[in-house]
Amino acid sequence: MSLVVQKYGGSSLANPDLIKNVAKRVAFAHDRSDSVVATVSAMGNLTDDLLEIASEVSDRPDPRELDVLLATGELQSCALVAMALRSIGKKAISLSGAQAGIRTDSSYGKAKISRLSPERIRHELGKDNIVIVAGFQGVTEESDITTLGRGASDLTAVALAAALKADRCEIYTDVDGIYTADPRMVPKAQKLDEIGFEEMLELASYGAKMNPRSIELGMVYNVPILVASSFEDLPGTLIHAGADMNIEVGEIRNRVRGIATEKEVTKITVYSVIDRPGVAASLFKPLADADISVDVIVQNASVSGTTDLTFTVKSADLISAMDVVRAVSKDLGIKDVGHSTGLAKVSIVGTGMQDSPGYAAKMFSSLSESDINIEMITTSEIRITCLVKEEATADAAKALHEAFELDKTE
Amino acid sequence: MSLVVQKYGGSSLANPDLIKNVAKRVAFAHDRSDSVVATVSAMGNLTDDLLEIASEVSDRPDPRELDVLLATGELQSCALVAMALRSIGKKAISLSGAQAGIRTDSSYGKAKISRLSPERIRHELGKDNIVIVAGFQGVTEESDITTLGRGASDLTAVALAAALKADRCEIYTDVDGIYTADPRMVPKAQKLDEIGFEEMLELASYGAKMNPRSIELGMVYNVPILVASSFEDLPGTLIHAGADMNIEVGEIRNRVRGIATEKEVTKITVYSVIDRPGVAASLFKPLADADISVDVIVQNASVSGTTDLTFTVKSADLISAMDVVRAVSKDLGIKDVGHSTGLAKVSIVGTGMQDSPGYAAKMFSSLSESDINIEMITTSEIRITCLVKEEATADAAKALHEAFELDKTE
Repeated sequence: MSLVVQKYGGSSLANPDLIKNVAKRVAFAHDRSDSVVATVSAMGNLTDDLLEIASEVSDRPDPRELDVLLATGELQSCALVAMALRSIGKKAISLSGAQAGIRTDSSYGKAKISRLSPERIRHELGKDNIVIVAGFQGVTEESDITTLGRGASDLTAVALAAALKADRCEIYTDVDGIYTADPRMVPKAQKLDEIGFEEMLELASYGAKMNPRSIELGMVYNVPILVASSFEDLPGTLIHAGADMNIEVGEIRNRVRGIATEKEVTKITVYSVIDRPGVAASLFKPLADADISVDVIVQNASVSGTTDLTFTVKSADLISAMDVVRAVSKDLGIKDVGHSTGLAKVSIVGTGMQDSPGYAAKMFSSLSESDINIEMITTSEIRITCLVKEEATADAAKALHEAFELDKTE
Repeated sequence: MSLVVQKYGGSSLANPDLIKNVAKRVAFAHDRSDSVVATVSAMGNLTDDLLEIASEVSDRPDPRELDVLLATGELQSCALVAMALRSIGKKAISLSGAQAGIRTDSSYGKAKISRLSPERIRHELGKDNIVIVAGFQGVTEESDITTLGRGASDLTAVALAAALKADRCEIYTDVDGIYTADPRMVPKAQKLDEIGFEEMLELASYGAKMNPRSIELGMVYNVPILVASSFEDLPGTLIHAGADMNIEVGEIRNRVRGIATEKEVTKITVYSVIDRPGVAASLFKPLADADISVDVIVQNASVSGTTDLTFTVKSADLISAMDVVRAVSKDLGIKDVGHSTGLAKVSIVGTGMQDSPGYAAKMFSSLSESDINIEMITTSEIRITCLVKEEATADAAKALHEAFELDKTE
């Protein structure tokens, strides 16, 4: 039995006409497949609008209540899509995250799926219903509503696809696939027909507009994920394990698959930290507890028993990060803390880079030739990231895109 | 232990400032009472806005999906009020209809409460939480969301008050109580300090802006209901059993308690119905099944084995009522169906009227003196209703208000 899980983003559901368009697409998928489950996000900017109302009602909205509030957006969408499907003669039913069996822990606002019990979904599919599931949400063991974090409707879709052993998961959005770089920044960016999970994970984590946790989940459960446009009938990009493997067997093609960019990065430097074992943990654990993502960490060589630590955070997290650093500064003997905003991360991503020297050198010289100064560098097995001034982001991306011959179609 | 159940209507929650105002009022009630449960409606015109979106997505929105959609409005309100309470230092938690234990049948859009299991509410009250419950909604035994019908947040409040054995139920709205007539129509209308359940039920059923089922429930479980303004600190009107009894023991005061008016009424006449036992049921049962309220039924004396039946419906129900009548017309030998729109019901309500003749005569002569023609008449034990032309509604109400000396304060 063929089963497809689809996901439609908020911009694809922003008004009644677009909702009807999504219903048509879901119906079309149902014509081609035995069973269809579709996950939907909240309409257009509804989530932001609800956040705005919450902020007017309370300076620090209670996380549990914020989740009750935000989860309503997806409930509205799934009811509307189910209605629209019924009005074009399809059997359809909407299910909330709770009804769909998405159990989570109680970390409101960023809950993790603890268990997925899709009995109700299977029951409805058995009655020949198309099942529309509210994305982005789950329910605790105590029946309290949780949300899974911004952009987590992707995660709902991939998790459902994994639990239902779907043939594939299709993410429909306002872009028509994964590009070698952000096309708004690099006009010559090329759409990729396919990409591996690991590469996609790095791209998503370093700026590409997709939920990294959903890629990770797809990788773990080996769910092929198609990213395509909900507005046009174009092939899109397939994220699947095979795409990594093609490269590993040494196919002759460019090993840099894409350029990821992320703006609004701030660098924080902590001066004169006592240099003893565990000092990094004492600093970075409280930052992690405060849900602040820390990246690109550099530790200077120890001079006279102290060391300087530099790391980056999202600019939006600067204030909370500084609060955390100040709270531990006495314990760690920190003498001074500095920060510099207005930075961006530019990364090249591709499996196989680790076996082929010269990628880093090529990256640095390419940036240097464009008169772009590198502030910090960090690497993974399949990624090299340079920190540059924010205003140089597009130039850096364009230079690297050309240097690694991504301008050319494959 | 004192326990109060409050209800706040949509106009009292139309924007963030009003939501904060409601939170202050709930907090104030909590300062005076051991425990407070508050039910809330959807913000402002949200329910209408959602209905509008649904109608754009589907000609006949599926009732189950419509309930999922509409129920989100109250979820948003209860989350926001709980947030606002927390931000002023009160412990508060929001609960959906399902979490509050409101079980219903599966008549989507007009579900009836089948069972109320307020364990979770009691548990939260025990933790010293103010409990904010989403009004207007419940859940079937299959965990599907239902709504209880327009204006049914009142019903949620009274049902919770009954189940929790609350001291009283307070309905806060945009009017400051129950009036002897609609003040927009009768400028001399007086606010009542108190009114009996039966009188209020007749007023509510015949045009006063309150959910009749909630009054009925209050009557059955003897829950005193206060209706008051959420904007001002005014005493309001207390609906309680004592107010009926005062009158029954023959207190010297005006026995007409109020004038109810209802516009947009249509009269349907069915000609030449075969006059045999069960003919009325054959006509009115399918109307009831189609959820059309029929009222003011008049049957003409039988001539040559046939009879003419006249009844009224809400003008909005005209098309569906005509559909039903046409469907049964062959069976009943109906020769012709006529209708006349643009009518209104004007009623006088008061316990004790049945024991005192002359009320009807006074009503008819008062209307006649104002040159208002009576189209049809219907009565209950404590109500006399006349059907008049819609444009005469205000004049009729004013004339009756004066004739029965309601212009004077008590």
